Amino acid sequence: MESLLYRINRRRLLETINVSSSIGASENGGLSRLALSEEDKTMRDIFVEWLHQEKLDVRIDDFGNIYGRRKGKRNDGPTIAVGSHLDTQPCGGRYDGVLGVLAALEVIRVLNENNIETEFPIEIINFTNEEGARFGPPMLGSGGVTENFTKNFIYNIKDSNDITFKQALKSIGYMGEIENRLSNVKNFIELHIEQGSILEKNNTSIGIVEGIQGMSWLIVKVTGETNHAGPTPMENRKDALLATSKMIGRVNDLTKEFDGLKTTVGTLNVKPNITNVIPGEVEFIIDIRHPSNETRANAIESLKEQLSTIALMNDVEITITTDWTSDAVEFSQVVTESIREASEKWGYSSLNMYSGPGHDAKYISQVAESGMIFVPSCKGISHNEQELTVDDDIEKGANVLLTVINNLANGTN
Amino acid sequence: MESLLYRINRRRLLETINVSSSIGASENGGLSRLALSEEDKTMRDIFVEWLHQEKLDVRIDDFGNIYGRRKGKRNDGPTIAVGSHLDTQPCGGRYDGVLGVLAALEVIRVLNENNIETEFPIEIINFTNEEGARFGPPMLGSGGVTENFTKNFIYNIKDSNDITFKQALKSIGYMGEIENRLSNVKNFIELHIEQGSILEKNNTSIGIVEGIQGMSWLIVKVTGETNHAGPTPMENRKDALLATSKMIGRVNDLTKEFDGLKTTVGTLNVKPNITNVIPGEVEFIIDIRHPSNETRANAIESLKEQLSTIALMNDVEITITTDWTSDAVEFSQVVTESIREASEKWGYSSLNMYSGPGHDAKYISQVAESGMIFVPSCKGISHNEQELTVDDDIEKGANVLLTVINNLANGTN
Repeated sequence: MESLLYRINRRRLLETINVSSSIGASENGGLSRLALSEEDKTMRDIFVEWLHQEKLDVRIDDFGNIYGRRKGKRNDGPTIAVGSHLDTQPCGGRYDGVLGVLAALEVIRVLNENNIETEFPIEIINFTNEEGARFGPPMLGSGGVTENFTKNFIYNIKDSNDITFKQALKSIGYMGEIENRLSNVKNFIELHIEQGSILEKNNTSIGIVEGIQGMSWLIVKVTGETNHAGPTPMENRKDALLATSKMIGRVNDLTKEFDGLKTTVGTLNVKPNITNVIPGEVEFIIDIRHPSNETRANAIESLKEQLSTIALMNDVEITITTDWTSDAVEFSQVVTESIREASEKWGYSSLNMYSGPGHDAKYISQVAESGMIFVPSCKGISHNEQELTVDDDIEKGANVLLTVINNLANGTN
Repeated sequence: MESLLYRINRRRLLETINVSSSIGASENGGLSRLALSEEDKTMRDIFVEWLHQEKLDVRIDDFGNIYGRRKGKRNDGPTIAVGSHLDTQPCGGRYDGVLGVLAALEVIRVLNENNIETEFPIEIINFTNEEGARFGPPMLGSGGVTENFTKNFIYNIKDSNDITFKQALKSIGYMGEIENRLSNVKNFIELHIEQGSILEKNNTSIGIVEGIQGMSWLIVKVTGETNHAGPTPMENRKDALLATSKMIGRVNDLTKEFDGLKTTVGTLNVKPNITNVIPGEVEFIIDIRHPSNETRANAIESLKEQLSTIALMNDVEITITTDWTSDAVEFSQVVTESIREASEKWGYSSLNMYSGPGHDAKYISQVAESGMIFVPSCKGISHNEQELTVDDDIEKGANVLLTVINNLANGTN
């Protein structure tokens, strides 16, 4: 099959998305469809029906992940998996996760209506509780099947009403079997909205996601000496905020030393925070990201040294502790190359980029050669009812997904 | 009289201070003697008794200020006034204000026991509600008699229990007559603790206060653009905190351009203050002080320009508004010279300096040639139960006060 002979049915895909947008619809055009809620159950039931309509072999695993399997010529061969999640944030958007699942369904429909047989089987997946809004942490379904979390851990997580994940899963009727978990996967592809504004600002339709940035949060505590602003001479001061202001400059300049590094100081608190009192203590948190774990580690090491020097020169004490770290993920070059080729064939503009947020593909990449396709988010807004990806971009993203899935399932890439 | 023939009675002064320290004593060695409270009444009653014991002519004015007048040879001539306040902050110290009143009393006692007649009459004063802790703003007694506040304004100020100044004044029995207000004053001298650490750090006993610094508070609001830390490229950011950090550096550097200028950023708040979100807004307040009103105005003008340039270069918006201004006060050269000479005669180390905080002398300087003597505060601590001035420094300050009062009251200076 030459993939360009086939294209997705734009109207059908948009209508399918519209059905989803009506389930858990919030007042201002968004969605509130928390994982394992009644709304999630309704969406799942409809989704399972759609899978059956496409004659897929439907199964549910012990985390409630839903799989729809389409046979391949080599049905005992490895699977090409595609999907994302149907749950949302409270007052979230209509596209985050949803697009990746429903565009995958559209791909299956196109293959089916054209009677296309692929070499390898294709599995479309809806992962449970990606958002982590009801049951934290996020990505429990994909993290469960890849054994990043134990079953025991996941089952006992409670929501704000003290209902456990296990209870919620049973109550909506989606407690499946451990035998049904994802296995023998060759590739996993996730189409997702960017949740940033790079594609929009570059007037580009397709983001070829090379990986997910690694991230560390460093808590910096600067201790000086609280004193009255009136009598204390400038030269005798130990001003924690003045020292901090120099550190923030340094944190920013670090991105010029390490190519591709991103640093942000988003949280900063001053003590005692009184106008005529020299600040005795400032605590701030540095968010530091890079696609390479090694580069991030080197940058952190260098930064710690530089901040300590600033502290010394400003006569203040400093402590730096790592609050949280999430390692970078590098996606498969086979998959990114496949996405690049598909975009080119379709004549769509594309851009290589890294994802800031995590996604189900982060965990699945541990067991399969994986990749992600991004489509533009208007103004970069997500986790918000105003979230929007325009129809043209939805169509383009789904067309690229169709081509990539078809190529991978035929071993063309 | 040659003043050096007489010295204050250290033991008596310390015992008098000890009596004060027992009235409204707080658990940790401090004082809680709010203006016009029961504790304040007890202190006032004892103070009035002490004044009577010294045969002073006691009078109370319509703000509750207490005066004790000692006749001079020229009893119709102008008065030499000396004093401070006996009220304290909640959990304040034992010396702030109290020292100035009780050392003045000690001066009177020395003059009396040595039968010294002065040319001009001497008045010792306890001003009502200097602290402003119960009835804000501060310095109501001294501000009232100098007509910086109207009687109507002062009388209607309410404390946190909705009790007016007037009600409180009546209820403790210290509502006096308008005719009793301060009048025909030649000089006013206030001995006070430094409330800073300059004297201590310079190992100096006497601060010759040349004036009270003028002060402005500028509210700076920096507006950038809130965005996710992950996807937003460094070059597309409008980071309000990064821009602010450069401004804080500039605020500090300004003190190198203007000799004697003091700048402090004590208050700073970040919005939304979330670790992985680029700050969209920062508001901070600049405290800027200088003994000269003109220099402070020039510095502010220069600073506004410089901050606007930083805003422009960092692609953020800035607004700067003046929150509050208090003009500088220049004390009388006759008085500061008298303090310098007295310190020299006693062989005490001294230092010319400016006061950061305001004091009763600020208002009285509008109607009389005024000045202040500072004595060291351990570690610069005040408005705190840990406030301390050591006995040696108390003695030295009071000796200088004795000499200055005596000289001024004899027209020697």
